[in-house]
Amino acid sequence: MTTQTTSPSDAELTELRREFHRHPEPGWCEFRTTVRIVEELERMGVDEIHVGPDALDSEERLGVPDDDVLAEWFEQAAAETDRTDVLERLEGGHTGAVAVVENGEGPTVGLRVDIDALPITESTDDDHRPVAEGFRSANEGYMHACGHDAHITFGLGVLRTVLDSEFSGTFKVFFQPSEELLGGGKAMAAGPHVDDVDHLFGAHVGLDTPVGTVVAGLDEALALSRMDVTFEGESAHAGLAPNEGRNAVQAFIAAADNIYAIPRHREGNTRVNVGGIHADNAANVIADRVTASVEVRGESTELMEYMRDAVDRYVETAAEMHECEATVELTGESIRQDSDEELVELVSGIVTDHPDSLSLVRRDALAASEDATYLMQAVSENGGTATYLGIGASNPSGHHTPAFDIDERSLSIGVSVLSDSALRLLA
Amino acid sequence: MTTQTTSPSDAELTELRREFHRHPEPGWCEFRTTVRIVEELERMGVDEIHVGPDALDSEERLGVPDDDVLAEWFEQAAAETDRTDVLERLEGGHTGAVAVVENGEGPTVGLRVDIDALPITESTDDDHRPVAEGFRSANEGYMHACGHDAHITFGLGVLRTVLDSEFSGTFKVFFQPSEELLGGGKAMAAGPHVDDVDHLFGAHVGLDTPVGTVVAGLDEALALSRMDVTFEGESAHAGLAPNEGRNAVQAFIAAADNIYAIPRHREGNTRVNVGGIHADNAANVIADRVTASVEVRGESTELMEYMRDAVDRYVETAAEMHECEATVELTGESIRQDSDEELVELVSGIVTDHPDSLSLVRRDALAASEDATYLMQAVSENGGTATYLGIGASNPSGHHTPAFDIDERSLSIGVSVLSDSALRLLA
Amino acid sequence: MTTQTTSPSDAELTELRREFHRHPEPGWCEFRTTVRIVEELERMGVDEIHVGPDALDSEERLGVPDDDVLAEWFEQAAAETDRTDVLERLEGGHTGAVAVVENGEGPTVGLRVDIDALPITESTDDDHRPVAEGFRSANEGYMHACGHDAHITFGLGVLRTVLDSEFSGTFKVFFQPSEELLGGGKAMAAGPHVDDVDHLFGAHVGLDTPVGTVVAGLDEALALSRMDVTFEGESAHAGLAPNEGRNAVQAFIAAADNIYAIPRHREGNTRVNVGGIHADNAANVIADRVTASVEVRGESTELMEYMRDAVDRYVETAAEMHECEATVELTGESIRQDSDEELVELVSGIVTDHPDSLSLVRRDALAASEDATYLMQAVSENGGTATYLGIGASNPSGHHTPAFDIDERSLSIGVSVLSDSALRLLA
Amino acid sequence: MTTQTTSPSDAELTELRREFHRHPEPGWCEFRTTVRIVEELERMGVDEIHVGPDALDSEERLGVPDDDVLAEWFEQAAAETDRTDVLERLEGGHTGAVAVVENGEGPTVGLRVDIDALPITESTDDDHRPVAEGFRSANEGYMHACGHDAHITFGLGVLRTVLDSEFSGTFKVFFQPSEELLGGGKAMAAGPHVDDVDHLFGAHVGLDTPVGTVVAGLDEALALSRMDVTFEGESAHAGLAPNEGRNAVQAFIAAADNIYAIPRHREGNTRVNVGGIHADNAANVIADRVTASVEVRGESTELMEYMRDAVDRYVETAAEMHECEATVELTGESIRQDSDEELVELVSGIVTDHPDSLSLVRRDALAASEDATYLMQAVSENGGTATYLGIGASNPSGHHTPAFDIDERSLSIGVSVLSDSALRLLA
Repeated sequence: MTTQTTSPSDAELTELRREFHRHPEPGWCEFRTTVRIVEELERMGVDEIHVGPDALDSEERLGVPDDDVLAEWFEQAAAETDRTDVLERLEGGHTGAVAVVENGEGPTVGLRVDIDALPITESTDDDHRPVAEGFRSANEGYMHACGHDAHITFGLGVLRTVLDSEFSGTFKVFFQPSEELLGGGKAMAAGPHVDDVDHLFGAHVGLDTPVGTVVAGLDEALALSRMDVTFEGESAHAGLAPNEGRNAVQAFIAAADNIYAIPRHREGNTRVNVGGIHADNAANVIADRVTASVEVRGESTELMEYMRDAVDRYVETAAEMHECEATVELTGESIRQDSDEELVELVSGIVTDHPDSLSLVRRDALAASEDATYLMQAVSENGGTATYLGIGASNPSGHHTPAFDIDERSLSIGVSVLSDSALRLLA
Repeated sequence: MTTQTTSPSDAELTELRREFHRHPEPGWCEFRTTVRIVEELERMGVDEIHVGPDALDSEERLGVPDDDVLAEWFEQAAAETDRTDVLERLEGGHTGAVAVVENGEGPTVGLRVDIDALPITESTDDDHRPVAEGFRSANEGYMHACGHDAHITFGLGVLRTVLDSEFSGTFKVFFQPSEELLGGGKAMAAGPHVDDVDHLFGAHVGLDTPVGTVVAGLDEALALSRMDVTFEGESAHAGLAPNEGRNAVQAFIAAADNIYAIPRHREGNTRVNVGGIHADNAANVIADRVTASVEVRGESTELMEYMRDAVDRYVETAAEMHECEATVELTGESIRQDSDEELVELVSGIVTDHPDSLSLVRRDALAASEDATYLMQAVSENGGTATYLGIGASNPSGHHTPAFDIDERSLSIGVSVLSDSALRLLA
Repeated sequence: MTTQTTSPSDAELTELRREFHRHPEPGWCEFRTTVRIVEELERMGVDEIHVGPDALDSEERLGVPDDDVLAEWFEQAAAETDRTDVLERLEGGHTGAVAVVENGEGPTVGLRVDIDALPITESTDDDHRPVAEGFRSANEGYMHACGHDAHITFGLGVLRTVLDSEFSGTFKVFFQPSEELLGGGKAMAAGPHVDDVDHLFGAHVGLDTPVGTVVAGLDEALALSRMDVTFEGESAHAGLAPNEGRNAVQAFIAAADNIYAIPRHREGNTRVNVGGIHADNAANVIADRVTASVEVRGESTELMEYMRDAVDRYVETAAEMHECEATVELTGESIRQDSDEELVELVSGIVTDHPDSLSLVRRDALAASEDATYLMQAVSENGGTATYLGIGASNPSGHHTPAFDIDERSLSIGVSVLSDSALRLLA
Repeated sequence: MTTQTTSPSDAELTELRREFHRHPEPGWCEFRTTVRIVEELERMGVDEIHVGPDALDSEERLGVPDDDVLAEWFEQAAAETDRTDVLERLEGGHTGAVAVVENGEGPTVGLRVDIDALPITESTDDDHRPVAEGFRSANEGYMHACGHDAHITFGLGVLRTVLDSEFSGTFKVFFQPSEELLGGGKAMAAGPHVDDVDHLFGAHVGLDTPVGTVVAGLDEALALSRMDVTFEGESAHAGLAPNEGRNAVQAFIAAADNIYAIPRHREGNTRVNVGGIHADNAANVIADRVTASVEVRGESTELMEYMRDAVDRYVETAAEMHECEATVELTGESIRQDSDEELVELVSGIVTDHPDSLSLVRRDALAASEDATYLMQAVSENGGTATYLGIGASNPSGHHTPAFDIDERSLSIGVSVLSDSALRLLA
């Protein structure tokens, strides 16, 4: 192993991104991904590398898949690496890593990137560059269709650049698992490495923005909460003894009926939806079990919480009404946390002064949900500042579509803007 | 005052009935009615007369009107009688009376009659006999439209006949208030005078049956429960702060929606209805109060209770769902209690052997609700027997209609069949 | 092939029943079963054999499985028989047969038996006679768990007995497919062979009645209707454009909510249930499709129809409310048709006079649903008479359970009572 | 009668306002008010005065009270005026007036003021100036609690000022009835006098703004629609024949249940509420009639219409579901129409340059509903411009409260700002 002590070249960044692109893994299953990140961190001579249970608060993970799903991805990763030492610490969905480098006195600056992929089958179209240039997903049915391969590359590239620079203070990179499920942000924010961060950067590539454009502050992420709701009653013969059942269908209907009618809120827009309903009893049996997935959103964290609390209450009382039991399992959640003006200002200056004639958008709305907000909130609550950048990439197809791709020039732009920003604070 | 010591003549019975017909009073407001009953009982030299709180268990009264309604009827009665001594014991809706006569050893036999009238405006048609013969209701808007005037007459007439006969044992007449509201039966059954009754008779006049026909056992009364349901929440401006209300309309809807859907029961037919809904807030105010009246029925007492318990649970949980408070006030209730074969047999024999060539129907279905069943049940639970008779009266118009009336020959038939039955047991 | 011209022996009946028991096929998939019935009919020299589309009105079939399910069973049957001539007429779920024998002038008498099996895995317990004696189901997951193997045997056995007897008139046996789904009765009643039947018999073995007991008239079958309900709307992103969807979940809820609340009916008991709900959209997508199975029942055909019509109307209007489309596909239906006293009397006489000292139950309640009622109704509407018999069989385990079995002495009892009854009419 | 040919003094304005304050009349009942306006207009020598059916499109009136209510107010007005000639043209709720003055060539400028009062009982507190100074409402239970008395004064005062000035063109004042019900704006906009208006001003006094402050453009009025919904079914006895009813309560519940759940809209905030529910049937009767008032709002006219259309559809389909009839009667409606920048600019200049050192607020949000927007929209659609001003009045108590009042200095401020603005355009 050769230690990498210099800032990465464009070619190196592209190579890294393409390797991660070929090996997409979904949330909490980023076993190979985490091992490869650790290998890269080791090559750079990073001071501290925390993985799995040491990187985040495992109790706060949301939406962790069933054991058999975890096991399948774990075994596939095991077949592709000899780093059993790292891998076995990740078992059971303990993916993700935190890298720390330190150099004397100074502030602590952080960069958060996300590392998971999506259950989308990548395009096989010859025009799709990953096909044309041979780095299409090797995990059929899964794809880095939201650019997290680039985000990992940002993390590693910025770290090498910082290490190759003079800096004073501490620099941390958070390789966060399971953003797509909104399952990892809360756990990483609750982990042991965020509290001392003074300034935090996050970034998203693409977003239907041209390469060369940088948004210094992406705001207004919709706060979101996803829940698996289960009603359990008792079966009975619908013809012979309808009163002897405890009807999970009636409990579900009573809840769902009202969930759609949660009162509008004076403070702004909210959203609610019920999807994925399953009740398997035959028509002649009073249903003993109904499951449904429910999602609520709000313009603010408070609005989301208002909606989520109502769902909790409605489910519980509807179950009581029909003498059923109900559980609401939170499977994903994100909050709203806007960028701090101080860092937006700093990044704006760097973008404006950038030698590559970048275009600056000071602030824009994200129009989606994002759990980097948990880390931003944690930093903010400790008196620090945070901002979430957009790095244009002229993506030819929308996020979460089979033909998503990025203009790879965005890789070095992202690395340079982020490392310049970090180094300015670590001067 | 002349003591009456002989069995009443047909003319006397008719006169009594007509007097009560002229002075109808609704449930718990039978102030004048009770005073007049007491006066008649005193004239007969009855041993014990219990009125008001001594006649029944006041705590068990259901559907007692508001104080101002009670006061209005009380004052009207006060203006028509000088028996202040009796009247003041009735104040606050403590109407009704129990008469007891005793003569040596022997069983205790009871007769239950009901004394209240209905909020129906009596016909003014010249063909309507009470109009033609001058005994139409003097209380405009109220009417003895179900024959309870005849029932009071049965009670007084049978008592005089028994007193005029040789008998051994104890005979009681229960002048029960508030049958139409299903509000008095439970209270009288819970009172101190029913428990020692060995054999109980009840009777209903009319029932679209020809005069001269007697039904020895009227069964299958539908068990019924009536409830006033109130949801109380908190108002808020529907435009400016919809989330700040606690919406009583939504709570009501959630309850009512499910109340209609209470599962059918394996044991038989049930009924449910929601009527009389009132919410007075304007459209731009989140409602802080909704009231509704709810009624459930069942082929059996158990089925009614199953339905009533479901209403209770649904109302409570629907209120919790929308953070409202709810109350369910029971305003009337009746159970099912069928006639005992032993007494049906006894009455059948008396009807068959009657000199007036009466027609016998051994048993028939009542197809209505009736709270004499509470007294019948109490007697039955103490090892006694009971039956509820039908006394045909060729009523020219249905019960609860403005032109209801009876063929007054039914008065002496009822008195003779009931007194013969009682005396057979008191021989 | 040897022609069978004599009444079947007990051993022959047992052998037949066991063969059918080993080869259970579910509704509309009775391909092998129908072929074997045809082979037996040919051996007897039956005059007319109608199969498939000639036996019933194909348009009236309910609950026909998907093509791939039909194809699988068809291929299995094809592998077990060389009677391709028969089999190919059954393709596409056109199972079932009607046998007709005629001998001069006289009435037309019919016997209806059902031939399908259930999706139940038969017991592997050594105590279970089919295991012990080697005729357990060869089609794993399917089982003659309701005695239709015995019914087929009744049909063939009675036919041989009639052919071996002197008779004058016409005798028909209806081998009806798909009773368990309540899918075949209506189609067979609508077919060309029922209208001229003057007297019809049906029979069910078992019913928790001891062997040797015969019920001359089984009545009060619950009328039942089963429906697959589908709501189709339009998807939209639940966060970004909730108003652009047409929400199939909301349409379903609006319908189901009200379906449970279909008003009770004055004429008697009804039932309603919603089971098997499926909506597959994710929580962040407004659902474009929900399916559910709905079942209604009534004490009478009219009550079932009242409930079914309400479901139809509620589904249609709930779909309109949310701008969705809805379909209600009837997948099974049965009516109530009680036995005619004339035939109950005739059968009662035969049972009473039977040399084997049979016990007679004149009439009993069926307490289940049964589509033989369609054929009974058709005969009745043409001025004929019908009755549905119960043939006790001391079944050691309930119907539709893995350990269901019959005392095989019931086979000859059923054959003799049914053939004696038919021959009495064909004398 | 003396013709008034000079601009009004402060004392005259105060006197006018106080007179109208003493005689509040609710929407469509402004009989005396309209007569008095006409009298004032005549004194000024206004060219054209249109009242009642000539002032607006009577067909478009919303929320007109019942005939007996109209008659009561009409008779009261008749007792207080001898101008029968005017009054009889107003009969049947044809209140309101339009005044037109013309002077040669030039644009047409309009001023819209509203004239109705509220069903609020005015404070009797000695501190309440109308009490202290003797102009408290003479119509007990009704009150000018929103400042429309000042608005009428604005209308008359501006007209006198314009008449007393040099101007070139046409000036119209719209005295609009029934703003509180949102019932008159649409009708006046649809009338014959709005279409040729090039520039329109509206104004509201108070709004919790200090006297001396003027808002040049009040925007973001919430679009609102109010509906009286009636469900009519058929009664039946809830115990004996529940299926024979057509249950208006069930229809109402099905509608209301879903109305609260109308999907949120991507374009912004919406509101919905159900208030004022009335069903008068007893609990033992299937309800044949339910009425409810429903209100929806939206940030924009389109959002309000989206909600209103959903209510229409839900009510209709819910009625069909339960075989009821339903009607939705629109009783009030307002749209959103923001102020035109051109006029905001003009008014801002006048306010800034005003000799009385007025404070300017260029634009503010109205945070309420207002039907002047219909006239503004009509002008805008014809290529004109409009603005809605706020005239601060240091109101000591909130709008629509019993102690509402204004600092009467606001009267001359309003008159001068509005007349200066009009005259600038009519120069």
